Amino acid sequence: MVETKKLALIVHSGTLDKLLSAFILGSTAVSIDFEVHLYFTFWGLMMLKKGEMEKAGLPATYKHMEEQLGQKLKEMNYPTPYEMLKRMKASGRLKLYACTPTMEMFGVTRDDLIPEVDTLAGAPTILDITADADITLII
Amino acid sequence: MVETKKLALIVHSGTLDKLLSAFILGSTAVSIDFEVHLYFTFWGLMMLKKGEMEKAGLPATYKHMEEQLGQKLKEMNYPTPYEMLKRMKASGRLKLYACTPTMEMFGVTRDDLIPEVDTLAGAPTILDITADADITLII
Amino acid sequence: MVETKKLALIVHSGTLDKLLSAFILGSTAVSIDFEVHLYFTFWGLMMLKKGEMEKAGLPATYKHMEEQLGQKLKEMNYPTPYEMLKRMKASGRLKLYACTPTMEMFGVTRDDLIPEVDTLAGAPTILDITADADITLII
Repeated sequence: MVETKKLALIVHSGTLDKLLSAFILGSTAVSIDFEVHLYFTFWGLMMLKKGEMEKAGLPATYKHMEEQLGQKLKEMNYPTPYEMLKRMKASGRLKLYACTPTMEMFGVTRDDLIPEVDTLAGAPTILDITADADITLII
Repeated sequence: MVETKKLALIVHSGTLDKLLSAFILGSTAVSIDFEVHLYFTFWGLMMLKKGEMEKAGLPATYKHMEEQLGQKLKEMNYPTPYEMLKRMKASGRLKLYACTPTMEMFGVTRDDLIPEVDTLAGAPTILDITADADITLII
Repeated sequence: MVETKKLALIVHSGTLDKLLSAFILGSTAVSIDFEVHLYFTFWGLMMLKKGEMEKAGLPATYKHMEEQLGQKLKEMNYPTPYEMLKRMKASGRLKLYACTPTMEMFGVTRDDLIPEVDTLAGAPTILDITADADITLII
């Protein structure tokens, strides 16, 4: 019996480039039967609010490339970050966490969040998840 | 006997959001008896200069939310990054490193830095610290 | 016989500060006989286009410090990121990957890239590289 591999991603960023990097990595991991844990904090957490992920843009440094990238992704029929998230979720191998300290700092409630979120949790949960993960990254 | 767990964080960023993420994670780790190693480099190193951490703000992309977040943190009586750092230090389980190449690049001397810094060190020390860490992140 | 240690760096960022952090760490690792794997994606991938790494600047938040840092690095005779990359490559212990999804998104071809690139690869390769790495970071 092969042990299940585990990828833990802490998503601090909320910009389109970082979401794509995180979700492409997460989707690939799910596709080869990894267990994937995504913990959203700070600007990442903001992207879990209903309707927000669809509006994700590029950071200030690369703002001027936002329109070009958006058009290219459309032409390629590239899945949006939210579509990627839902596919990962549908696999049954994704666990999605929302950071409770961030929710308090920005006045965000459970009802504000997309239904795909599994668990509201704080930093102790990150340490639990990452303690036995094969790969841990913060993006 | 349980072996002590070890968290290694390389703090490259110097903005309030990243410092909070790093220090909330570090504080939580300290509270459950992890050994925590914080290595400050680049903009993170700048925040070790006396008086600088108190002035940490948000990055360009989120600058417009700086005042709102600052007021909310005050209302919550949230500890400042420097207060969190001092509490971690008081636990005896935090080791604080300042990156010597960065100090040279920006003309920073030991006397410019807060007294909580334990060691001035370069990249070989990062590899030493992280080689046997249970969790290693760069933020 | 000592097993070779392995450092895996995913380079998402394309700014000078992040390239320096990544390459100082990579160069140090190479110098103590680590095997180093650098996977360039997104803004990092852009920096693999011929002539681009020489133009790397600071992110929006720190743009005002770009000239000062550039002058200081010159005074120090600090190697440029591209020089550091070529030295790592010359050691025979660096493997350089270019992210194929990013290349497609931004219309970049193999001919656009510097000759030091070893492999064009997607996310499955990242998981392969990192699965048995001693240190894995995304910057």
